[in-house]
Amino acid sequence: MDGQSPRPQAHRRPEREGSHNYDIESTDGAGGPPWRQNGSSEALLRYDDGGVGDRGSAREPLLRKRTMNTTSQIAIVGANVCPIESLDYEVVENDLFKQDWRSRKKKQIFQYIVLKWTLVLLIGLLTGFVGFFNNLAVENIAGFKLLLTGDLMLKERYFTAFLAYGGCNLVLAVAAAAICAYIAPAAAGSGIPEVKAYLNGVDAYSILAPSTLFVKIFGSILGVSAGFVLGKEGPMVHTGACIANLLGQGGSRKYRLTCNWLRYFKNDRDRRDLITCGAAAGVAAAFRAPVGGVLFALEEAASWWRSALLWRAFFTTAVVAVVLRSLIEFCRSGKCGLFGQGGLIMFDLSSTVATYSTPDLIAIIILGIIGGIFGGLFNYLLDKILRVYSIINERGAPFKILLTITISVITSMCSYGLPWLAACTPCPVDSVEQCPTIGRSGNFKSFQCPPGHYNDLASLFFNTNDDAIRNLFSNGTESEFHMSTLFVFFTAVYCLGLVTYGIAVPSGLFIPVILAGATYGRIVGTLLGSISDLDPGLFALLGAASFLGGTMRMTVSVCVILLELTNDLAMLPLVMLVLLISKTIADNFNKGVYDQIVVMKGLPYMEAHAEPYMRHLVAGDVVSGPLITFSGVEKVGNIVHALKLTGHNGFPVVDEPPLTEAPELVGLVTRSHLLVLLKGKMFMQDQVKTSGSLVFQRFGAFDFAKAGSGKGLKIQDLDFTDEEMEMYVDLHPVTNTSPYTVVETMSLAKAAILFRALGLRHLLVVPKTPDRPPIVGILTRHDFVEEHIHGLFPNLNPHRFHSTSMGG
Amino acid sequence: MDGQSPRPQAHRRPEREGSHNYDIESTDGAGGPPWRQNGSSEALLRYDDGGVGDRGSAREPLLRKRTMNTTSQIAIVGANVCPIESLDYEVVENDLFKQDWRSRKKKQIFQYIVLKWTLVLLIGLLTGFVGFFNNLAVENIAGFKLLLTGDLMLKERYFTAFLAYGGCNLVLAVAAAAICAYIAPAAAGSGIPEVKAYLNGVDAYSILAPSTLFVKIFGSILGVSAGFVLGKEGPMVHTGACIANLLGQGGSRKYRLTCNWLRYFKNDRDRRDLITCGAAAGVAAAFRAPVGGVLFALEEAASWWRSALLWRAFFTTAVVAVVLRSLIEFCRSGKCGLFGQGGLIMFDLSSTVATYSTPDLIAIIILGIIGGIFGGLFNYLLDKILRVYSIINERGAPFKILLTITISVITSMCSYGLPWLAACTPCPVDSVEQCPTIGRSGNFKSFQCPPGHYNDLASLFFNTNDDAIRNLFSNGTESEFHMSTLFVFFTAVYCLGLVTYGIAVPSGLFIPVILAGATYGRIVGTLLGSISDLDPGLFALLGAASFLGGTMRMTVSVCVILLELTNDLAMLPLVMLVLLISKTIADNFNKGVYDQIVVMKGLPYMEAHAEPYMRHLVAGDVVSGPLITFSGVEKVGNIVHALKLTGHNGFPVVDEPPLTEAPELVGLVTRSHLLVLLKGKMFMQDQVKTSGSLVFQRFGAFDFAKAGSGKGLKIQDLDFTDEEMEMYVDLHPVTNTSPYTVVETMSLAKAAILFRALGLRHLLVVPKTPDRPPIVGILTRHDFVEEHIHGLFPNLNPHRFHSTSMGG
Repeated sequence: MDGQSPRPQAHRRPEREGSHNYDIESTDGAGGPPWRQNGSSEALLRYDDGGVGDRGSAREPLLRKRTMNTTSQIAIVGANVCPIESLDYEVVENDLFKQDWRSRKKKQIFQYIVLKWTLVLLIGLLTGFVGFFNNLAVENIAGFKLLLTGDLMLKERYFTAFLAYGGCNLVLAVAAAAICAYIAPAAAGSGIPEVKAYLNGVDAYSILAPSTLFVKIFGSILGVSAGFVLGKEGPMVHTGACIANLLGQGGSRKYRLTCNWLRYFKNDRDRRDLITCGAAAGVAAAFRAPVGGVLFALEEAASWWRSALLWRAFFTTAVVAVVLRSLIEFCRSGKCGLFGQGGLIMFDLSSTVATYSTPDLIAIIILGIIGGIFGGLFNYLLDKILRVYSIINERGAPFKILLTITISVITSMCSYGLPWLAACTPCPVDSVEQCPTIGRSGNFKSFQCPPGHYNDLASLFFNTNDDAIRNLFSNGTESEFHMSTLFVFFTAVYCLGLVTYGIAVPSGLFIPVILAGATYGRIVGTLLGSISDLDPGLFALLGAASFLGGTMRMTVSVCVILLELTNDLAMLPLVMLVLLISKTIADNFNKGVYDQIVVMKGLPYMEAHAEPYMRHLVAGDVVSGPLITFSGVEKVGNIVHALKLTGHNGFPVVDEPPLTEAPELVGLVTRSHLLVLLKGKMFMQDQVKTSGSLVFQRFGAFDFAKAGSGKGLKIQDLDFTDEEMEMYVDLHPVTNTSPYTVVETMSLAKAAILFRALGLRHLLVVPKTPDRPPIVGILTRHDFVEEHIHGLFPNLNPHRFHSTSMGG
Repeated sequence: MDGQSPRPQAHRRPEREGSHNYDIESTDGAGGPPWRQNGSSEALLRYDDGGVGDRGSAREPLLRKRTMNTTSQIAIVGANVCPIESLDYEVVENDLFKQDWRSRKKKQIFQYIVLKWTLVLLIGLLTGFVGFFNNLAVENIAGFKLLLTGDLMLKERYFTAFLAYGGCNLVLAVAAAAICAYIAPAAAGSGIPEVKAYLNGVDAYSILAPSTLFVKIFGSILGVSAGFVLGKEGPMVHTGACIANLLGQGGSRKYRLTCNWLRYFKNDRDRRDLITCGAAAGVAAAFRAPVGGVLFALEEAASWWRSALLWRAFFTTAVVAVVLRSLIEFCRSGKCGLFGQGGLIMFDLSSTVATYSTPDLIAIIILGIIGGIFGGLFNYLLDKILRVYSIINERGAPFKILLTITISVITSMCSYGLPWLAACTPCPVDSVEQCPTIGRSGNFKSFQCPPGHYNDLASLFFNTNDDAIRNLFSNGTESEFHMSTLFVFFTAVYCLGLVTYGIAVPSGLFIPVILAGATYGRIVGTLLGSISDLDPGLFALLGAASFLGGTMRMTVSVCVILLELTNDLAMLPLVMLVLLISKTIADNFNKGVYDQIVVMKGLPYMEAHAEPYMRHLVAGDVVSGPLITFSGVEKVGNIVHALKLTGHNGFPVVDEPPLTEAPELVGLVTRSHLLVLLKGKMFMQDQVKTSGSLVFQRFGAFDFAKAGSGKGLKIQDLDFTDEEMEMYVDLHPVTNTSPYTVVETMSLAKAAILFRALGLRHLLVVPKTPDRPPIVGILTRHDFVEEHIHGLFPNLNPHRFHSTSMGG
């Protein structure tokens, strides 16, 4: 099996001179379509990228709603049908585009640059506004709910208070789940895994659609207000990406908001750059951390990066920061209802100690170890829970709402019921703050306690999550929280965070992780108070960092986000140390939580490095037939037939006698270009090669611009007469004449690195020896997926060869 | 000329069966070597990467000492000989390495990971120590000099004071220039352009050698102490990179400091990663800015980047921050002589206003525009001055020292003479600081003034550069500096900064740029004081940012470095705005200063994007003969002959009859691997293909590890008997069987993107039609250089096609 395995025979066309008896067949062979027929009875057209059939692998894409009635392009991952489209970052160089580049005016280039910066500015402005609106709405809705309940509790109508509190939560939760389940199921969850996959080149169905954006914004507001243990940070990243996508594709055609100026951005490369900026803007808006946002996009989200993009992303986040600052300034005058200091979490630790000693470092190492273990466990449990949930969610929207109701009731019971366990504590005499708290947020919630006392567990539970974090991070409050309180709160938040993520509500993971981390940070700080001089507030911060490192495995961006949240440079080395330890430990158990979700959703994410077992295979081992090729001047009927019966997105074009002396590879033509060319109906009676000038007159490069997802031309939309079907069309002007190729004996590992580094969608495999047809096959993204390779070579044990970056 | 130009005929071997009559010839043809004979009469062996001859282009690599007596590998750029070696980031997959990967133990992988982190830790520790030592030495030397002069001035012995001041400066300057000119000429200048080029894949001669490190550290200390208008930041980056390189290659064999454990890191990829970390550590040590250091490495220095590297670089800078903090803590007790608060610049602007209005924004836009214009002008003038200086410096070390003496005298005269122009100002009554200043540094230098007065120009000139910057950035000091003072200081610093950079002393550009920028920032702030409420200290900061943006064109890293220097998040959006404007304006005039120096030095830097004119050429257009290929089982004599007479670093291996039925490309073998194989003398009597098992027993992968620059095996070191020369050697086990290839009709633009994205050294060009030999030529880095292409196609105007990222 070490690279010497028998290669699957590549499908070869019979080389009859002048004949065009193509093997046009469904990739499914003779049998019926293997995907599940589901709720919607509309048949799915099965598309894939290259020419690869079903390999019957057992991967289960979970968390995906399978009832969709769309003809969007679909790729096969494992045995399941996923509405996924690969993206193509390769520069297409065909004769038509070259003609266009040559004639491109300086004015157009100027227009492009101005538009680019305008778009980036708009992304920043809109994301900033949405981020502020989100906070404003949450603060007002949750504030109203808490004040109402607090009033009832003051009147000692405790059961009514619970009904009011739980009822508010339930209504908000059902509203969130309903819009999510019925309007845009793709909006559920964090959205960061999907954005990450998109930036890697995988476009999951409707993940950046306008309806998803709508549900993400309002679902997140409702979900956070409903008192769930979830955050708005992940959804903000997804929101930023959706805004960027919507602006980049010139609005939504469905909702008649289009703009033709934006034709320049109708390609995967420019769209990717805009969405990277949008993701950065989302983080910046969620945390008010412009630098952190850029680093997040860089470290976690983006798969390709370059200096110019860094600069553009930074500009976007700066705009977000300015917008947020101005709006908060505006709200200082009290015009924004219950919007106080809260919402945009911003913690001030500035008075903490600047020096630390050896015992402090030991405490920090302990924190790091705990963070690594809890983080790894969290990811493990989340994986299991999501698998269970996916079975429930699959049954349809009512079940999704039912699950959400269950979790909402449990959450309400925890946050209203558990504080009754805590004893009332007398108010500290030297407190700067009011005690007990009057109003919405504060450190000293009175709850059921008599005047002059407060309930420390209620200060954490009976608050918005942002306020609870602020209370945990507050410094100089060594004795505010009892040990038992912190233990109860940690257990509740850890478990609620786990069970909340999979419900059909936009839900981020940052807040649950920060909450749980800060709590055990304070526990450790209190326990080690005798040997360490650090403030428990700082311990809470370090705990949050360690848990973030343990679950998300981000380092630099978490560090900078925490730095920007707390505005304290002195703690930077401590945070770095704790992150290093927790990430290293957790990496021994499993992957980061976002990577795990990407895998679970069946998105064919490509890592930048090749797996070691790929070194023992060659490119020819994994390509497999049937391969459909076109002649340079092809009969219209053949093309239409091929497009109708297969879902291939790329077709090799081979010039054959009589056009050339010997068969010769011209290049690759994509489905979308073929469709545009066919629509133009520039057909000829004879099979002769033209100069292409007719095509150049008829078409410009922008006619071939990529439409928004699901909006491109479809072969079903085109009609041809029988006469037209017998005519010929010259494919040369639209054929990409410089496709990247590898020789069939190229190591699969190196082909994978090439594929990933250049952001390809199709990689042509050419034969090694000259006495063969000029093309062996096409490699696409899913040919590199481990399940596919394992399906072809069941005896090849991927774990036999150690996974390491050594020499790789 | 649009891609249809006649291709230079690739040299083709006569295909006589069984014959091995190779065309082994010097790439120079019959004539003598075309490089200039210079001071050292030792003949230079001329190496290049592929098989490409002299193209007679007119590019002049300046700023390079041409008298070197080394047999290090040399590449040709333009018409000149530059001691440059290309680096190879491709994963070599040959049978031997595959054998080795298969048998690699878990233990070894663990060893590798532990070593990697240990190295990174050591880089951080050492760079931190060096950074601190640098500051400590400068503060003490410069402090002693200033105190001595100040004492003499108090006694009104003004001329003696000038002699003492100028004399100290001169001695320090001559010492710096002497070690630089005689020991390590590569240590002159900033070092950032060279590090940037190294990380792009260009290894300039001895740029990371131990001698360069030594001179960089001590030359920088002497140069900064000598009162020049130059900084230690650039040299610190270079120092960090040198330390990383030294540690990575296991010490210096020359100085008998080697370590065999480090064999894992003896390849270009791992070394590149370490040097990226080193560069980040250098910035972190220079500015005490750990996050800024990482972003600098990311934005400016590195050409390739991945998430794991981000994390490692971040760890390195965290270690630097911890080391610096502990050492400064240690010095607080007064054990470090004159080392006060100074040295590691750290400015506190924390009390500046947090709000700003429209007039403030107008002021900031004006600052941005000025920064862009001054920045572009600075780069333009620096280019001219460096070209003049290179003529002087080329004449030898004495001339270098003479130039340094001239600049030193001018600098001393300016900084001692110009303050006499300023009038004495009475001390402000409400000043928190002592006035006039007693001791070394401070805002109110008395200079020649009577008691109770201070000379504001002396406060800027007669100080270390760090203290001058601190004075300019200080807030609440609206009336401290007169307008005339600021104008005089700005003019002097701008001009001195320009003339100082090219001298033979390690010299950074950050400090001159920050000084000049802060000064005009204060001027603008004072002029607009009536309409803007911002503090002049904040204006100085924004001015510095605008000038940094205008010259260096860095954005995110400058922003974060300034953020970390001033510890004030509120000014972040303002700094971003000013940087955006100044960079955008300056980009219309010329390139960033470091890119400009890279070009001027003739380093073949490859941008991540392809130039538009490359779209109109194909790969086959730029490859040119003679090409030397080896047979899979080759006669030793032929190999030795080829290695001796040419400087090619990569040779295609072609199996021919009788080994195979038809000629077939096996792969690529590199010079270094051939040398190791030849040294092993595993020769055979007959030309038969072996199983390779003998080679596998004799060699391990580590025997082929890359040695430090200039330390590898040389063909001259090997001796062969006549009998051995007639024997055969099997090249298959060491041939890279998966080299990346492009078809000769591939667009040059796309070949360039492939070459750059994968970090290749050799790219094989294969024929399109089957009836030709299996290899057309090899593309190397300099085949993509504009001068080379222009030399081949003089009629192709690169400026005819617009340079834009559209569609590219």
